[in-house]
Amino acid sequence: MESMTFILFGATGDLAKRKIYPALYNLFADGKFPSSFSVIGLGRREVPDAQFQSNVEQAVQTFSRRKPQDSAQMQQFLSAFRYCSLNVNHPEDYKKLLQLAEQREAELGIKSNRLFYLSVAPEFFDVIALNIQNSGLGHTEGWKRLIIEKPFGHDLESARELNEKLSKAFAEDEIYRIDHYLGKPMVQNLEALKFANPFLQDVWNHDYVANVQITAAETVGVEERAGYYDHSGAIRDMVQNHMLQMLMMTAMDKPAQVTASDIRAEKRKVMEALRPLTAEQVQNEIVRAQYGRGELNGKSLPGYKEEPDIGPDSQNDTFIAARVWIDNEKWAGVPFYIRTGKRMAEKSTRIVVEFKRDAADPYAAQGQPATPNLLVISVNPQEGATLSINSKNPMNGKLETVHLTFNEQNKEVPEAYERLIYDALRGDSTFFAHWDEVELSWKWVQPVLNAFQAGTVPLHTYAAGSYGPEASAKLLAEHGFTWWLDDALEQPESVTAR
Amino acid sequence: MESMTFILFGATGDLAKRKIYPALYNLFADGKFPSSFSVIGLGRREVPDAQFQSNVEQAVQTFSRRKPQDSAQMQQFLSAFRYCSLNVNHPEDYKKLLQLAEQREAELGIKSNRLFYLSVAPEFFDVIALNIQNSGLGHTEGWKRLIIEKPFGHDLESARELNEKLSKAFAEDEIYRIDHYLGKPMVQNLEALKFANPFLQDVWNHDYVANVQITAAETVGVEERAGYYDHSGAIRDMVQNHMLQMLMMTAMDKPAQVTASDIRAEKRKVMEALRPLTAEQVQNEIVRAQYGRGELNGKSLPGYKEEPDIGPDSQNDTFIAARVWIDNEKWAGVPFYIRTGKRMAEKSTRIVVEFKRDAADPYAAQGQPATPNLLVISVNPQEGATLSINSKNPMNGKLETVHLTFNEQNKEVPEAYERLIYDALRGDSTFFAHWDEVELSWKWVQPVLNAFQAGTVPLHTYAAGSYGPEASAKLLAEHGFTWWLDDALEQPESVTAR
Repeated sequence: MESMTFILFGATGDLAKRKIYPALYNLFADGKFPSSFSVIGLGRREVPDAQFQSNVEQAVQTFSRRKPQDSAQMQQFLSAFRYCSLNVNHPEDYKKLLQLAEQREAELGIKSNRLFYLSVAPEFFDVIALNIQNSGLGHTEGWKRLIIEKPFGHDLESARELNEKLSKAFAEDEIYRIDHYLGKPMVQNLEALKFANPFLQDVWNHDYVANVQITAAETVGVEERAGYYDHSGAIRDMVQNHMLQMLMMTAMDKPAQVTASDIRAEKRKVMEALRPLTAEQVQNEIVRAQYGRGELNGKSLPGYKEEPDIGPDSQNDTFIAARVWIDNEKWAGVPFYIRTGKRMAEKSTRIVVEFKRDAADPYAAQGQPATPNLLVISVNPQEGATLSINSKNPMNGKLETVHLTFNEQNKEVPEAYERLIYDALRGDSTFFAHWDEVELSWKWVQPVLNAFQAGTVPLHTYAAGSYGPEASAKLLAEHGFTWWLDDALEQPESVTAR
Repeated sequence: MESMTFILFGATGDLAKRKIYPALYNLFADGKFPSSFSVIGLGRREVPDAQFQSNVEQAVQTFSRRKPQDSAQMQQFLSAFRYCSLNVNHPEDYKKLLQLAEQREAELGIKSNRLFYLSVAPEFFDVIALNIQNSGLGHTEGWKRLIIEKPFGHDLESARELNEKLSKAFAEDEIYRIDHYLGKPMVQNLEALKFANPFLQDVWNHDYVANVQITAAETVGVEERAGYYDHSGAIRDMVQNHMLQMLMMTAMDKPAQVTASDIRAEKRKVMEALRPLTAEQVQNEIVRAQYGRGELNGKSLPGYKEEPDIGPDSQNDTFIAARVWIDNEKWAGVPFYIRTGKRMAEKSTRIVVEFKRDAADPYAAQGQPATPNLLVISVNPQEGATLSINSKNPMNGKLETVHLTFNEQNKEVPEAYERLIYDALRGDSTFFAHWDEVELSWKWVQPVLNAFQAGTVPLHTYAAGSYGPEASAKLLAEHGFTWWLDDALEQPESVTAR
């Protein structure tokens, strides 16, 4: 990795403490940083450098996956950090920042490669990008890059506007949009699983696959995020970005080479082949729901409308299930089901590929038809893969399901933010959301937003602590399918070493 | 199961104690026997019934997988047993046996269904079968069946002669030839794995498979069996029967129905498609070897010729490796490798299916080509299946092999003999060796025996405690392959619950 300056807008914020500083620390501790690097934190308040460094240390001690033991190493790490107060609307503050950046670059003897991390509300992206350009901060000897977090807009139009503005200061290949699901090991692994295994690759198409089910279920409710969430809903918070990104990773075809640009091209093709929804079709293909009262692990749970700061008339979705079609040769006729929600029965992100049954099943005649083969990619909390197949029970000779499982046991696995920041610093944009994917995602979601706005999609209710509304099961039942593994008891309790 | 009379020739022998009585007991204890049944043990010596029953109980206490706890149940079991002294060459003794059988059938009020188990040396099969017929023992109200153990002949000619003789008294569908490998759960499971899983079935052919490797390795040497083994060799002891049976089970096509006759037909097709060896080809396709001195687990091991009762000039094979070709549409061009031997590095029976690599491997350009996918069926001592695939190491993003594994954990699994005797008593011949399979196996092996006899196949040496001679590795290297998992350290240490 080349030497660089890491400039963090929002240095006193929550994400910085919980994710960014721990990520930087762990990368440093793993020797992944260049010997000389500069970090500049920015915020509105004045904070002396020593205090800032102390705050960073505190954040690392509290939130890092590995507790720092080596205080000399910590001091060396912190010595790279400086703080600068900055009001995003004040052009002169950017000049001050430039001076500090150049001064540090001179002190360290490093050329100017600058990464700007915008850990601030999206309404500030515009003014920040403009000022980065105008002030000369973006005029580097080496490279400049921008990291931004979702939401990338609120709908298609606002997403386009936002990107237009960013594009004035940064080229597309300089913009790194974090979708942290793309930092999860098993989502990144979809690439390897599919492209490094002819065995799997050859059956990854409509000839062998009956349907694909992508679930991202949470047990938590809206928690502290009411202000944001009540205007966003599951459709914007999860579907437009994380769910469609997982869909792209699952459905994409093999690239000629495993490079960022080839992978990006294949992901775009998936989005281009996604069947658009007309206003009428939204009602048939999308299930919208909100959690009501319920119970989980013996504990009573309030309904969404009873949560703090949520109005009693809120029509917001906390759950979305969708059936989508990818109209290309590979996936013609294969329904892809997406499902995400808060206050569901378990915390689980998984991708289930259900394979087609045998039309000429020789066991059917015996009255014990084989159950469909499944490949389950467990993304979270467990990371691993399971192949569920039919086998003979050695006790009674009857068919039963067994699970060939692999689960990641290594506790030292880097966090998503470490992987993603490391990739951005090395200039590898493979696992970031690219503009074409973002635009096409919004394009596909827009009719859904319109229909929600127009009130033409009924808002179902589901009990907190359940798997969602009845309508979600019906969506699959229309083609004779059911959601797999909707029962923690069904989940294979399997532990496998590497 | 219908009521029946189980007539055991060789009732005082080793197999009876170690396998047959424990099997009968466990079937009885599991409630798999009819309420009324009769067992008659036969041997040359006179043994009073009470002594015989006591001997049976002793055998069960010593060798059963489950220690009998219920003495009332044991008494009930033993009460079915009677003993009759019989000289196989004395026709009048068979009349005596018939009287006893009929007396017991009358006492129990059961009709005559009689199973004759010949746990005796094959030279007696002829005279026993003839006498069964002549005495009227074979003239039953219901069915009659014959169970025999290998060896089924010594070569093609003797096998045919033996079968000819047995056929005078028993129809083919009354003859149950035990190949105990067919009683092993995972060998029986090959049927279900292949035919109840479209996912696997679809890739079980030359389009996807690079080669198949069937290994049956033992760590033991010739032990007490020198007299038999020195005239048999691995080619007769293992290849002609167990190895070719596993080959049939692995290579067979899906039957229309999972019935004994359909499965038998598919197994026969495999044998008919097996490419016959000319005298010249034997040298190229067969590796013959004998173990010399070596070491295992720090213990010195003698060479074969140093074993008790083995002559210093013995040219017998204790190891065979073979490359066989199945010339049909399904397997054209796919080498099947068979390997079996005594005094090898580990005790392991396994079938490894190596899948073809990706000609357009997108990872090859990165300098880390994907390793081939493997499906490993572990038959013994571990029972289970493992799929080895490429995955990304979450620590460094590089490709590595992970194992999706299932291992049978249930300790209550019935023994092979229980399963096979139960099947024979129910008239299910699926997992027995049928005459056509036996004849075709001898037919294929005969040129190899001829070449060994003619001395045209070199006898290699391998160190006891190794994986065999260099020539065995070369056999695969000719097509660019290697034997997989030849290192206990490589084996996935995986434990997976059902």
